[in-house]
Amino acid sequence: MPDLRLAGGDVLLHDGTWRVVRADVTVREGRIEAIAMAGKGEEGRGKGLPSAPPQVRDCRGCLVIPGLIQAHVHLCQTLFRGLADDLRLEDWLVRRIWPLEAAHTEETLYASALLGSAELLLGGTTAILDMETVRHTEAAFRALERIGIRATVGKCLMDAHPEGAPIDLAESTDDALADAASLAQRWHGAADGRLRVCFAPRFVPSCSGPLLRAASDLAERFDAQLHTHAAETIVERETVLRTTGLEEIAYLDSVGVAGPRAALAHCVWVDAHEIDRLARQETTVVHCPSSNLKLASGVAKVPEMLAAGCRVAIGADGAPCNNGLDAFAEMRLAALIQKPRLGADALPAAQVLELATLGGARALGLEQEIGSIARGKRADLVVLDLSEPHLHPLLGDPVSRIVYSARSSDVRDVFVEGRPVVLGHELLTAPVDHIVREADRAAAELHRRARLA
Amino acid sequence: MPDLRLAGGDVLLHDGTWRVVRADVTVREGRIEAIAMAGKGEEGRGKGLPSAPPQVRDCRGCLVIPGLIQAHVHLCQTLFRGLADDLRLEDWLVRRIWPLEAAHTEETLYASALLGSAELLLGGTTAILDMETVRHTEAAFRALERIGIRATVGKCLMDAHPEGAPIDLAESTDDALADAASLAQRWHGAADGRLRVCFAPRFVPSCSGPLLRAASDLAERFDAQLHTHAAETIVERETVLRTTGLEEIAYLDSVGVAGPRAALAHCVWVDAHEIDRLARQETTVVHCPSSNLKLASGVAKVPEMLAAGCRVAIGADGAPCNNGLDAFAEMRLAALIQKPRLGADALPAAQVLELATLGGARALGLEQEIGSIARGKRADLVVLDLSEPHLHPLLGDPVSRIVYSARSSDVRDVFVEGRPVVLGHELLTAPVDHIVREADRAAAELHRRARLA
Repeated sequence: MPDLRLAGGDVLLHDGTWRVVRADVTVREGRIEAIAMAGKGEEGRGKGLPSAPPQVRDCRGCLVIPGLIQAHVHLCQTLFRGLADDLRLEDWLVRRIWPLEAAHTEETLYASALLGSAELLLGGTTAILDMETVRHTEAAFRALERIGIRATVGKCLMDAHPEGAPIDLAESTDDALADAASLAQRWHGAADGRLRVCFAPRFVPSCSGPLLRAASDLAERFDAQLHTHAAETIVERETVLRTTGLEEIAYLDSVGVAGPRAALAHCVWVDAHEIDRLARQETTVVHCPSSNLKLASGVAKVPEMLAAGCRVAIGADGAPCNNGLDAFAEMRLAALIQKPRLGADALPAAQVLELATLGGARALGLEQEIGSIARGKRADLVVLDLSEPHLHPLLGDPVSRIVYSARSSDVRDVFVEGRPVVLGHELLTAPVDHIVREADRAAAELHRRARLA
Repeated sequence: MPDLRLAGGDVLLHDGTWRVVRADVTVREGRIEAIAMAGKGEEGRGKGLPSAPPQVRDCRGCLVIPGLIQAHVHLCQTLFRGLADDLRLEDWLVRRIWPLEAAHTEETLYASALLGSAELLLGGTTAILDMETVRHTEAAFRALERIGIRATVGKCLMDAHPEGAPIDLAESTDDALADAASLAQRWHGAADGRLRVCFAPRFVPSCSGPLLRAASDLAERFDAQLHTHAAETIVERETVLRTTGLEEIAYLDSVGVAGPRAALAHCVWVDAHEIDRLARQETTVVHCPSSNLKLASGVAKVPEMLAAGCRVAIGADGAPCNNGLDAFAEMRLAALIQKPRLGADALPAAQVLELATLGGARALGLEQEIGSIARGKRADLVVLDLSEPHLHPLLGDPVSRIVYSARSSDVRDVFVEGRPVVLGHELLTAPVDHIVREADRAAAELHRRARLA
């Protein structure tokens, strides 16, 4: 990997609060070596022998920000975009998502993961926590290995056959766990550590207690994250209470799906005492505002969670419930939807940006490695081009500019571990025209195979 | 104006419902002359003498849609973007917007209108209903004349000096009306009818009854629209009830601000009987979802309004309460925010797209002229490039793709009355680098002059 210098940009730093400095960012062996303020020499540069001059990328007029992190996505669903609109979660799953997931082949899943990860990288998302479907997770890893995003990926675990789910998604507890362990042996730490495995039970209604407990044990054994859905709808909340006798957060705790290893997507339907429990456990809540609105699930109490000390990350969820994978759209929406409920100063831009950076890093268990631009962290970096009219005037707060005004299309360059994956708005690691053509072809095949009602 | 053919695209038509056909769209003298289905000859072509071959724009792989219409914007506020975040409407006005509006000069207002209209055109908005500030509306017209957008613009009328408003915004009733009439004489129908004037009292709390009544009379006299804010916040609703003794919609009706000429921005705080009244009157409600969330105003009851038969349009409002002027962001948000309240099938994509096209055309009083791609209508057209990953697969409903997935950055070409104003994502009518530089300079000057607390 060649060394690199991002020169002359405004660099977004975080030391308790966000601040911007005009600086050069130097990268060596995939890590941030120095942040040299303009006119101050290269403070913070590591000592070492002189070496070849780095590749220099001119970032004047640009804003250099940490790579954005989405801690809940389903890349296997990217091909379902636009095929499941205007349905409630339960119908959405039974009538669309499960039949489509069951119809996946290795080839269609590869095309789906490549399409989704291309969209993510082009939009400045450099790391994801991903939940795939029951089969063909290997194909997702191969796509992610190729395209160069940082990803923690779990095969979907489900051993309790939920009403309406296709038989092709059913697995025994033992088969599900064996497949997950085998994936972990092959992929956890692959691509020089860029790819990791998580253990991903779908949600309580489709998982037995022993499966959940075993997933938690596997996460400990492999030093990996746990990734599930929780408290997404009132129906789910009531189902869990009826079938387990416990509130959902307490039940998940009882089977070991809690604590710093665990990322729970949604948590729309949690009470104040459950929020306190999540905070005490140091469990991450992954807020998915577009998905929660589009599926009519509700609005998660994110400001209350942050006030209680919860860890909160953000994610686009899957393409069929969003219908994009756009971190900028999620950030803006996360800020906006709290305000009618709690006032115009609720969830200001600075907090929202933390969800998509430091919060995401914690969800992935990588808070020492990514989530901010700091010496020694991995060089997952995004360069925003500020030349378009919608980002002007440049007078105000740059964090407001990122959260309220910036768009995915402002992403000019993306680096993952110092490697350029997007330069000048072009994906370098795979040809986009080929990706979208293959995705169109695979979606048509999938649609035929799924025989949707 | 040369003739034009948009060739080989998927063309979005509306005849009761939306449908897409592969067709060529032919433009002559600023109007749509024919929509010729592929393989069917040029059905619908007007008869006439043979003429010079048209300019042909290759639209294969693209979606050709009607130009989007935003029926509530404040171009004078574009320079305030990012300067008024996380404030409630009343504080937002008194602490930020009014002092900044009062600090405008001809030059800063021209820069603000040019910046905003550049953003609008690049994002596929071809027509606007605009409210400027009290002074310098002439400068906005000059900017809009130059940049080529279709615009109906009103000077802001306010003769009741509201608490906290700077003295520079105060005008006598007679001065306000005389200035508005003078603008109408100069600009109503200018630029071959592309520019029109509206009469734009700010909102009931800053306007006397005689001013509102006279604005209504002027609108009749000039055959022009009325444009105001109504029922934006609970505070406004209660203020109007206390000061006029009437509910706001009834009061506006009593002074003649009602009916097909009138566009009322927001209408968040209206009861069912007021919705019925708006429907009977054929008044347009302009829904501004981002603004209503960001200022914590609430969520307008758009599905209820549509069910009652109301005319509804959409708008981004001003840059400081949004913080963009992005029709795609507004459409997506309009759909999403209704669903937690009313269910996942509330306000589906097809209805939302009508707000931003046919609904906007009605708000401008131009429903015979714009708002859909139909023979004889003015050729306000947008070509969406479908090559980016976030728009794939192409399998599903194209209307869902426009509302839920498309972004401003997908806008490749924009035509207003057949004239190309954006081609290949580049603005043709003014240099963007110059616009943003002037905007930055003007914003700094404005900020100094306004001496914000």
